[in-house]
Amino acid sequence: MIGIDWGTSSFRAFRIVDAGVTDRIASAFGIMQIAENGFEAHLRQAIGPWLAAGETRILMSGMIGSRQGWVEAAYLPCPADTASIAEALTQVPFCGCDLRIVPGLCGTDTVGTPEVMRGEETQIIGAGATGIVCLPGSHSKWVRVSACGRIEGFETIMSGEIFAALRKQTILGRMMPEAPHDNAAFDRGVARSGEPGHLLHHLFGVRALGLFDRLAPEQSASYLSGLLIGHEVRAYLLPGAPGSAHVTLLGSENLCALYTRAIIHCGGTASTGPADAAASGLALIGSMTRWT
Amino acid sequence: MIGIDWGTSSFRAFRIVDAGVTDRIASAFGIMQIAENGFEAHLRQAIGPWLAAGETRILMSGMIGSRQGWVEAAYLPCPADTASIAEALTQVPFCGCDLRIVPGLCGTDTVGTPEVMRGEETQIIGAGATGIVCLPGSHSKWVRVSACGRIEGFETIMSGEIFAALRKQTILGRMMPEAPHDNAAFDRGVARSGEPGHLLHHLFGVRALGLFDRLAPEQSASYLSGLLIGHEVRAYLLPGAPGSAHVTLLGSENLCALYTRAIIHCGGTASTGPADAAASGLALIGSMTRWT
Repeated sequence: MIGIDWGTSSFRAFRIVDAGVTDRIASAFGIMQIAENGFEAHLRQAIGPWLAAGETRILMSGMIGSRQGWVEAAYLPCPADTASIAEALTQVPFCGCDLRIVPGLCGTDTVGTPEVMRGEETQIIGAGATGIVCLPGSHSKWVRVSACGRIEGFETIMSGEIFAALRKQTILGRMMPEAPHDNAAFDRGVARSGEPGHLLHHLFGVRALGLFDRLAPEQSASYLSGLLIGHEVRAYLLPGAPGSAHVTLLGSENLCALYTRAIIHCGGTASTGPADAAASGLALIGSMTRWT
Repeated sequence: MIGIDWGTSSFRAFRIVDAGVTDRIASAFGIMQIAENGFEAHLRQAIGPWLAAGETRILMSGMIGSRQGWVEAAYLPCPADTASIAEALTQVPFCGCDLRIVPGLCGTDTVGTPEVMRGEETQIIGAGATGIVCLPGSHSKWVRVSACGRIEGFETIMSGEIFAALRKQTILGRMMPEAPHDNAAFDRGVARSGEPGHLLHHLFGVRALGLFDRLAPEQSASYLSGLLIGHEVRAYLLPGAPGSAHVTLLGSENLCALYTRAIIHCGGTASTGPADAAASGLALIGSMTRWT
């Protein structure tokens, strides 16, 4: 089969034989880079050689199933496990093939506000992660997974996108030259996130510390990153509560390293899942699919 | 005398006789709109007729005394009252006149992070405000003022600038058409700010509610505004604690109305200070100044 993880800003395709990846393609042609109605042609071209070699089963996950994607794949409500996800695939006409899209998941937070994910469910399944799982990114997901691998619920935190917006659009960014990551400044930001006061107040401190030469301009971005990730981690990590202080991280090596650092600083422990979680998840869901 | 409130994006001059304003000028020539070394020429032109009429005493407050302004006026540490501020003016050479700048104030929050204000101290003095005083804006100030009018300390909240950055730079803004303010949506945002969960999570809800048609696009900006102002107000308002549930607001009519609405929603009470607080403050400080 062929597995495709098609997100907002990236396209990754895997040729999968006996649950193992035998070939792969990656490009920056995320759904935002493809013209409307251009998905079919792009896919046919990208995986043409594999189709020519006889592959007919294709499973896609990620934002390709969103309203801005190829065909909208309805959200499946949590709790959801691999079997129920494999039952809820959306078929897409694609001449000569059986092409399906993995549903995103929806849920509600503790007071009923809706929550959505697309693509992360496939990574979680592929990693075999349980307990508290965090997928850091522009919109980080904090997911509760039962011991049997069922996704019970999750919440989204916008720290990544907010970091970028603060840097681009506010007075904080005007004092932030491009500079290499500074672990000491990052740690100071994480520590600050545990002090009294609201995040909206802590943010002004980035500027005030700079005004009084207590934070160098080239340290500011790392400090701000630590401040935001620290607030995020503290909202979900509850050291002392049994089983709630360990986090499984799924994401880029760089982001996972930052989150590990912050989680340890806040009294928790972290492990990082496998790099190919999306491919493994597509293979697993595919193995439970009744293909035509 | 002449009082001048010269901020980042506005210039306001008042001719003051016997503590009353007899003439005024307002323009959008804030310090960011003036070329370096252009402050003297701009001022001389703007208040030329008053100088020709014999005025020689000029007192300025606001960002004109910052590092990006005309001459840096050192911060005066809190606690500070009108007399100590009048003792700490910075003189600026300005041919034929005695020109001085009111110092900004500095302080620290409860854990020692620095805090700064410039211009707000003059408005507080002019309004004769005591207790909890809030000056809403890009960088809102929440100030504690003793019964005798001494400014004891303060904290800065970046909600206004963050609202603008989120609207311009994030996916939240892409779903926000220009629309008139919607009080019902604003109130929903304020209510949401009191629910469990971190602000970073509540922000994603703006998008998720929209995806599920539970928040109309034209309501989103008002909801986001209520969410941020609600978080801000709840960080400083402590209903039930004696004397801590009343807030005096100093600022634009529009912003003060929003903050009043949020404060009442959160169980507090609010009153709005006089519109000409800056002019009154400059007059008061001027009356305690030993002019040459």
